Amino acid sequence: MSGSPDGGAPADGDAFPLRVRYGETDAMGVVYHPNFLVYFEQGRTEFLRRRGFAYRELERAGALLVVVECGCRYRASARYDDVLRVKTWLEQVTRVRVGFRYEVVRESDGLLLAEGFTKLACVDRNGRPRALPAEVTAALGRPRGVAP
Amino acid sequence: MSGSPDGGAPADGDAFPLRVRYGETDAMGVVYHPNFLVYFEQGRTEFLRRRGFAYRELERAGALLVVVECGCRYRASARYDDVLRVKTWLEQVTRVRVGFRYEVVRESDGLLLAEGFTKLACVDRNGRPRALPAEVTAALGRPRGVAP
Amino acid sequence: MSGSPDGGAPADGDAFPLRVRYGETDAMGVVYHPNFLVYFEQGRTEFLRRRGFAYRELERAGALLVVVECGCRYRASARYDDVLRVKTWLEQVTRVRVGFRYEVVRESDGLLLAEGFTKLACVDRNGRPRALPAEVTAALGRPRGVAP
Amino acid sequence: MSGSPDGGAPADGDAFPLRVRYGETDAMGVVYHPNFLVYFEQGRTEFLRRRGFAYRELERAGALLVVVECGCRYRASARYDDVLRVKTWLEQVTRVRVGFRYEVVRESDGLLLAEGFTKLACVDRNGRPRALPAEVTAALGRPRGVAP
Repeated sequence: MSGSPDGGAPADGDAFPLRVRYGETDAMGVVYHPNFLVYFEQGRTEFLRRRGFAYRELERAGALLVVVECGCRYRASARYDDVLRVKTWLEQVTRVRVGFRYEVVRESDGLLLAEGFTKLACVDRNGRPRALPAEVTAALGRPRGVAP
Repeated sequence: MSGSPDGGAPADGDAFPLRVRYGETDAMGVVYHPNFLVYFEQGRTEFLRRRGFAYRELERAGALLVVVECGCRYRASARYDDVLRVKTWLEQVTRVRVGFRYEVVRESDGLLLAEGFTKLACVDRNGRPRALPAEVTAALGRPRGVAP
Repeated sequence: MSGSPDGGAPADGDAFPLRVRYGETDAMGVVYHPNFLVYFEQGRTEFLRRRGFAYRELERAGALLVVVECGCRYRASARYDDVLRVKTWLEQVTRVRVGFRYEVVRESDGLLLAEGFTKLACVDRNGRPRALPAEVTAALGRPRGVAP
Repeated sequence: MSGSPDGGAPADGDAFPLRVRYGETDAMGVVYHPNFLVYFEQGRTEFLRRRGFAYRELERAGALLVVVECGCRYRASARYDDVLRVKTWLEQVTRVRVGFRYEVVRESDGLLLAEGFTKLACVDRNGRPRALPAEVTAALGRPRGVAP
């Protein structure tokens, strides 16, 4: 994570809190693993919102971000009613793609539960690749990973 | 259920089999209750398909069916890997609405797990009420509940 | 809803805010209807928490609340990123059951999106009916519906 | 994927068919990306079943398989009512871990929609690492990746 455009240290990341819902658990009594990708999405949504624009508005303007790759390592289990924090970093921005990294920790003791990443591509309403809107790349703070 | 246009007896209903996925269970070790509404949807989708049209084609033709009311009674639990059967009956058809009833039974022993209903309204792509396509009401077999 | 033990007026209900996640929507562009039952569950969880006990602790003490019946009427659509409020009322409490009612409104303009109910039964870890813990019925404020 | 213990060619993999449910789509009109991990799980469940044992029985015998890492690349979108095939390969088996690879293709034309992997660890009911049951490693066919 040393190459993170935001500086890379987890402490620098945005942290979005959420509480585990009953329906997010499975018969093992812990959060069903794909739900961490849902948490990641909430993380990046709030990351963008804090930088001044809602993803919903992006879509209305015809710039959709689709996930083209994701990955997750699970370190410890999350349980019903746990309060989690989704830490989100911008990892890379190019003209048409943006990559995020995430850590999900348990709020009560800071235990790392999962870490992962998603890479997203910008497409228009017909699914064709297009450039990220200029205001998005600007709002993302010209991280080191931006292509010239 | 005596007023069912298909005759009303559960044995008359269409029965769609499905196997409970791990992620459909919750920390109690049983199927999370809202998932039965998902099963109902599969039931009515297959009910329509067997009568000659796919709901997907309906949507493409500009006739969307939105759920306006639902209800479910839970009789017994479903568990991971259980094979269930979703029995579906047409309950009522009017010019703009269609109602279905469902029973979900466990295939291994026929135990009734849940029963419920959904009422759906036909709308266009902008969400405005519209009449059900004529071929739909025809395919549904002119049940007793059809308005003249 | 005039028979609500809490007095029945929506304004009296507890209101829990939540923001619609992308994954909660479906191809119609609106919240997939079973997710309102998930929202209801969050509503009653927070209702209980504000009265001094977490449902998680109830489970640990061997008192599980299982949904035995639910119903929902859909009035208007919720969309991605909408902030909703889940209003929750206690409708009835008996020795072994508890019933809740819900309204989900859009925060921006107060529009009613859905209303529904759930009835829950108290069971032990083996799924056998048992009485609600005394502290639960007490915390629920001896509503008019409590059986003597 | 050349290192797959099963020989590695997609044609060798087991292929499990499933139909996309409405609720698995999102407001973009395509399958919500975390659901591919759900499809992967169905793939490996059926992979194991065809080799003679149900994962459910494994759990009852005290051997739980928990996902410790996953990843997915998305190639093309899946839509409501599409029939998909989840191809599953065994990638590696050690004394305590098992790894699978997956490809999800659209049945109508064989288009590759997604490919990914999961690594699972065997734990007991208390979440402590334990060896995979001998009959499991045997049933998995002593693939080349098995540790001595």
